[in-house]
Amino acid sequence: MNPIDPRDVVALKRDGRPVPEAELRAFVQGYGRGEIGDEVAAAFLMAAYIQGLDSGETLALTRAMVDSGRTLPLAGISRPKVDKHSTGGVADGVTLVFAPLAASLGLAVAKLSGRGLGHTGGTLDKLEAIPGLRTNLSPEEIEAQVERAGCAVAAQTPDLVPADGALYALRDATATVSSLPLIAASVMSKKLAVVTDLILLDVKAGSGAFMKTPEEAGALAEACIALAAGWDRRARAAVTDMSQPLGDAVGNALDVAEAVEVLRGSFRGRLRDLAVTFAGEALWLLEGAPRSEAVARAERALDGGEALGVFARMVEAQGGDPRVADDPWSVLPRAPVVRPIPAARGGVVASMEAEEIGRAGVDLGAGRHRKGDPIDPAAGIVFRAKVGDVVEAGSELGTVHARGEGRAEAAVRRVAAAVRIQDDPVEPPPLVYRWYGEGGE
Amino acid sequence: MNPIDPRDVVALKRDGRPVPEAELRAFVQGYGRGEIGDEVAAAFLMAAYIQGLDSGETLALTRAMVDSGRTLPLAGISRPKVDKHSTGGVADGVTLVFAPLAASLGLAVAKLSGRGLGHTGGTLDKLEAIPGLRTNLSPEEIEAQVERAGCAVAAQTPDLVPADGALYALRDATATVSSLPLIAASVMSKKLAVVTDLILLDVKAGSGAFMKTPEEAGALAEACIALAAGWDRRARAAVTDMSQPLGDAVGNALDVAEAVEVLRGSFRGRLRDLAVTFAGEALWLLEGAPRSEAVARAERALDGGEALGVFARMVEAQGGDPRVADDPWSVLPRAPVVRPIPAARGGVVASMEAEEIGRAGVDLGAGRHRKGDPIDPAAGIVFRAKVGDVVEAGSELGTVHARGEGRAEAAVRRVAAAVRIQDDPVEPPPLVYRWYGEGGE
Repeated sequence: MNPIDPRDVVALKRDGRPVPEAELRAFVQGYGRGEIGDEVAAAFLMAAYIQGLDSGETLALTRAMVDSGRTLPLAGISRPKVDKHSTGGVADGVTLVFAPLAASLGLAVAKLSGRGLGHTGGTLDKLEAIPGLRTNLSPEEIEAQVERAGCAVAAQTPDLVPADGALYALRDATATVSSLPLIAASVMSKKLAVVTDLILLDVKAGSGAFMKTPEEAGALAEACIALAAGWDRRARAAVTDMSQPLGDAVGNALDVAEAVEVLRGSFRGRLRDLAVTFAGEALWLLEGAPRSEAVARAERALDGGEALGVFARMVEAQGGDPRVADDPWSVLPRAPVVRPIPAARGGVVASMEAEEIGRAGVDLGAGRHRKGDPIDPAAGIVFRAKVGDVVEAGSELGTVHARGEGRAEAAVRRVAAAVRIQDDPVEPPPLVYRWYGEGGE
Repeated sequence: MNPIDPRDVVALKRDGRPVPEAELRAFVQGYGRGEIGDEVAAAFLMAAYIQGLDSGETLALTRAMVDSGRTLPLAGISRPKVDKHSTGGVADGVTLVFAPLAASLGLAVAKLSGRGLGHTGGTLDKLEAIPGLRTNLSPEEIEAQVERAGCAVAAQTPDLVPADGALYALRDATATVSSLPLIAASVMSKKLAVVTDLILLDVKAGSGAFMKTPEEAGALAEACIALAAGWDRRARAAVTDMSQPLGDAVGNALDVAEAVEVLRGSFRGRLRDLAVTFAGEALWLLEGAPRSEAVARAERALDGGEALGVFARMVEAQGGDPRVADDPWSVLPRAPVVRPIPAARGGVVASMEAEEIGRAGVDLGAGRHRKGDPIDPAAGIVFRAKVGDVVEAGSELGTVHARGEGRAEAAVRRVAAAVRIQDDPVEPPPLVYRWYGEGGE
């Protein structure tokens, strides 16, 4: 196409007018090639943030982002392929369970993940708490491992949607992160660049999520589903509760140990329920199994140990110590200081600031304040109390795992202060607020 | 003050909320020191463009811009000091006349000017068509010359409001130029950095101006007046007609020759009328002369040659050849090719695309497409026809002055096409639509 004046594209969006696909594409390409500067792209992002992008523009932006790099066709994998993505939450270890669980049910999971940023954890950081485990797999390694073991969880390579990394950094610097169409384009560009038969999205809503209400999360789910439809890809999204940590573990080694508990069937609770729910949806949509039977098969795969066996094979294939599946703490690093978190009063857990608990974990070293910061795989929080639980004054709500006494005590105070306890009973929030996309509500 | 997170400032404006003065100030300072990047400032500018800046924010922005550099106190000048600024138009040579005219009436004019950009001319380029004339005067030279000759027209130095130059370049790159508060802050920061007793603003409205309607121009005039008031500075603004070239000359040497004609009283028309009007306003407001008498004194200063004498002294003081005041074409460069612009039909001049005439001048070499482009001081257009004039088919509406035949013919066609001639009579537009600020409407 002809060269564009990028200011014309910026001016269209500035004035709230739609940007034609060819112009938007040329703009993203020009930015990717360095011909359009950060300051021009920043002006466009702010205009898009305030004026919005319609579904056609969001699709065109996503296409241009995908086309900025290579794709992962996964053509050598014979099983039905499912991808699963979470928009990020606290104690959200679903992927560690879902990938081996879905693989144990006959599906293929080639999952490209990111690192933790902000108050949410990252799957790569968690897996790398397992000594020896590599996540920098080549596309060929991923395919071979998935064909053999059923699943792989690897780092997103820089040549996959490079425009997303550049645009995300720019959005972070310019207060334009929390734009629904920009979030949808970022999330979906990475899902669409990997060729799978089904995309499952877990859109979190609540105090520990980027989207604070189920309505906002639903709008994001719809935008993502629309992008998949525009790409002729099957997709299903759940808006799920993030008003409290999903599992108990906020950390990396702690998260792996918890995932092993779920995979061996000994952990009951919302983390297991959500992993089973997603595995059931995948089996239903990809294999045509009746939905209730699909869920029951997923339950059995956990309770019977098949999912744990796949996890051990995946860890071993990626160079990690497979004994983690039998006895996690024989291989995972432990924090030297472990302190209980006591309930400030007796009563019923009414609510909690999940983001604050996530941030307390980051400050302990479980996450990073800035991209590239080192993390402490042993540090973190185990927080067992859930909304609706009855607790006694001084009873243990969980534990803090820290490098030193001072940091442990600070985290104990901070987490205890993030929990509200009242006298009246409280109804726990639903696990899934609503489903979107293929298969209906 | 404490360091700010510039993203918080951007986010406030993004969400349409007011930015407190201290934060806005810290943001501009941080940008000036290079601690805040172009991309962050670009996002802020776009947010400000779309969401607007209230009068308090515009004042705070202007203050921060002025404080980004040095100021010009002009403390050594004993006469009442008046500054005059035009927002830019076609054949807008008022400053070349106004400065010596006001000086001949006993006022002091220390005018800092810019170069031409876009379709409008720049006073510095015009003056530099006079062989030998320097515009890079030091603050001390400006003061000494004004005290002695009554006026000086010099280049704005880079250390005066440096933030304006940086922000203007960024606005130009990011489609955020045409924002009323940003324009007002840019215009007024440069006026407020020079300490004078009265600021006169000529806000152009029409096809040759940035503001296309008197209403838009009026809003800009009000914003500028409000900034002066917030600074405790006296100011008066006129919204004037720019639906056609103000004078006849579009160029640099051509403009100087025309100014000399006005200064010696031999040119009658709207350019003279507007220079006289502004000089009259200054005399009225600064010396307390009755308004009609002030205008009559300005008329006499032109017709009696006093203003021309001051012009000659100013040119000589700045190193130029003072014979320009007696016989302009004995010193000014002439273009080798001069071609008439014939009327396409007979009738009444109904309207013209003044910006198009300005752009034809730029393409001849009279102006620049990009900052730093060289200009041709001899090239340009003399366009005498004005709205309401009766013309015969083929009669000469003006002349094109060019380096070569091809460019001359292209300009002739372009200017002729920019003029609409009709059968019915047309009322010429007013010269001044309305006054704003001190002294009332």
